[in-house]
Amino acid sequence: MGAALARAYINAGHRVTVWNRTHGKAEPFQGQAKVAATPEQACSESDLTIISLLNYEASDQVLRTPLVAEAAKGRTLVQLTSGTPKDARSGAAWASDLGINYLDGCILAYPSYIGGEQTAVFYSGPKELYDRHQPTLRVLGGATSHVGEPIGAAAALDCALLESYYGATLSFLHGAAICASEEFPLDAYFAKFQTIMPLISITADMCKKMLSTGDFKGTDCTLDIHTGAIEHIARLSRENNVDRRVPELILSYFKRALQLGHGADEMAAVFNAIQDQGRG
Amino acid sequence: MGAALARAYINAGHRVTVWNRTHGKAEPFQGQAKVAATPEQACSESDLTIISLLNYEASDQVLRTPLVAEAAKGRTLVQLTSGTPKDARSGAAWASDLGINYLDGCILAYPSYIGGEQTAVFYSGPKELYDRHQPTLRVLGGATSHVGEPIGAAAALDCALLESYYGATLSFLHGAAICASEEFPLDAYFAKFQTIMPLISITADMCKKMLSTGDFKGTDCTLDIHTGAIEHIARLSRENNVDRRVPELILSYFKRALQLGHGADEMAAVFNAIQDQGRG
Repeated sequence: MGAALARAYINAGHRVTVWNRTHGKAEPFQGQAKVAATPEQACSESDLTIISLLNYEASDQVLRTPLVAEAAKGRTLVQLTSGTPKDARSGAAWASDLGINYLDGCILAYPSYIGGEQTAVFYSGPKELYDRHQPTLRVLGGATSHVGEPIGAAAALDCALLESYYGATLSFLHGAAICASEEFPLDAYFAKFQTIMPLISITADMCKKMLSTGDFKGTDCTLDIHTGAIEHIARLSRENNVDRRVPELILSYFKRALQLGHGADEMAAVFNAIQDQGRG
Repeated sequence: MGAALARAYINAGHRVTVWNRTHGKAEPFQGQAKVAATPEQACSESDLTIISLLNYEASDQVLRTPLVAEAAKGRTLVQLTSGTPKDARSGAAWASDLGINYLDGCILAYPSYIGGEQTAVFYSGPKELYDRHQPTLRVLGGATSHVGEPIGAAAALDCALLESYYGATLSFLHGAAICASEEFPLDAYFAKFQTIMPLISITADMCKKMLSTGDFKGTDCTLDIHTGAIEHIARLSRENNVDRRVPELILSYFKRALQLGHGADEMAAVFNAIQDQGRG
């Protein structure tokens, strides 16, 4: 990801300094960017430093040294490493103690999409700090936005959206396993996959509305009927010796929602079953 | 759903006979359709009879009588009740023994979308039988298609696509619970939800390609890195006392894929972890 970020800035005509723990990874940038020997040298070269590593453990090892603290003081550090809101708060507390300006951000895209008009990067932290650097930050993606002053906001949104993504992917791959068990061609299955994408969008919009009002009454389809459909999927998995854990987990939430009295409500009411489970 | 189906045919100018177990539900059709007193009367009125109930148990109670068998003999019965491929095979065997032409279909839409140009209805069974009735069947949805001769094909595809839908919905509602735990506004979360819809499509297309070749090498993002991201989501759920079962189930499949040696592969390789789980 680091290389994609540096490349976007070089392509946009910015003066760029790069550093990587593995010196060889910075080598291709010789002649196009300044290659720093150390993280502190990288920080001292620019008003704005962007860091993106595998996790906060890795980024803490790089950043939390007296030399980096001194080099970054009074400058802005943009943390694009993924983590939890707690990680973000920890980073912001560290930066605040040292007089470093700090934004926590999350990239919702694969490296090859960096710099694209649709590419989303979310930031949280002081709005005025974001606004000051917004033209520079926007180089990484046209859909860059500030999603809240609380420093954990971007990480919360990132985790929530990524979970939707991973959950959808796991589910459609499980659907593929169901098709395989019936010798239904996977090509044909994936070709029909677009059929349900609008349904997912419609349902998300309905949930947005219903969760804001707390009114789960609707006319599309009751949870009783949805639960019946999921029971077919779970039964098919049993009948065909396909892994059952995915449909059975889905089913358990829908059944819990029925127990909570939502049988005649729309699917948004499953939210209450999830929150109930968290309290349990 | 039955009312929506009848309404679509009446609106399209067809001569329609309706029947419902609850007589009151057929009453609104007086004057627009013939209201049959019994299922056998309904079957005897038309060459094509469409049935859509909650499950096969309910539809078997209606259909599997000597009087219906006699009335439907030599005619075509279209089963739009949802179930598993096994249910569909059982229905087709029953029909075949009695000389009833039989198609098994699945509606991938809410009742209010019946008759729409984008509405998908999938059929399986004899292709020539489908072709003969195709103009009539198409009244229910513009995206009507025959998905295979094996009678269970439509049910398999239906269950697989619905699972994608339910899995995506459960996951985005769990994401909403994560946002709620950080007091991140749910309206803002759902407003950003469209960000990941293209990612889901891109990933489905990638999986289509990779599952057909069995080659999971790519350049977007390795399973090692995806697994790290899911670990953040699971940890956030623990840190914030949000229900953990959704992210932990997702994580378990990704970790199994790593154990199977797919750490440097793309996410499509999770399919192997699902199949492995089914064998386990």
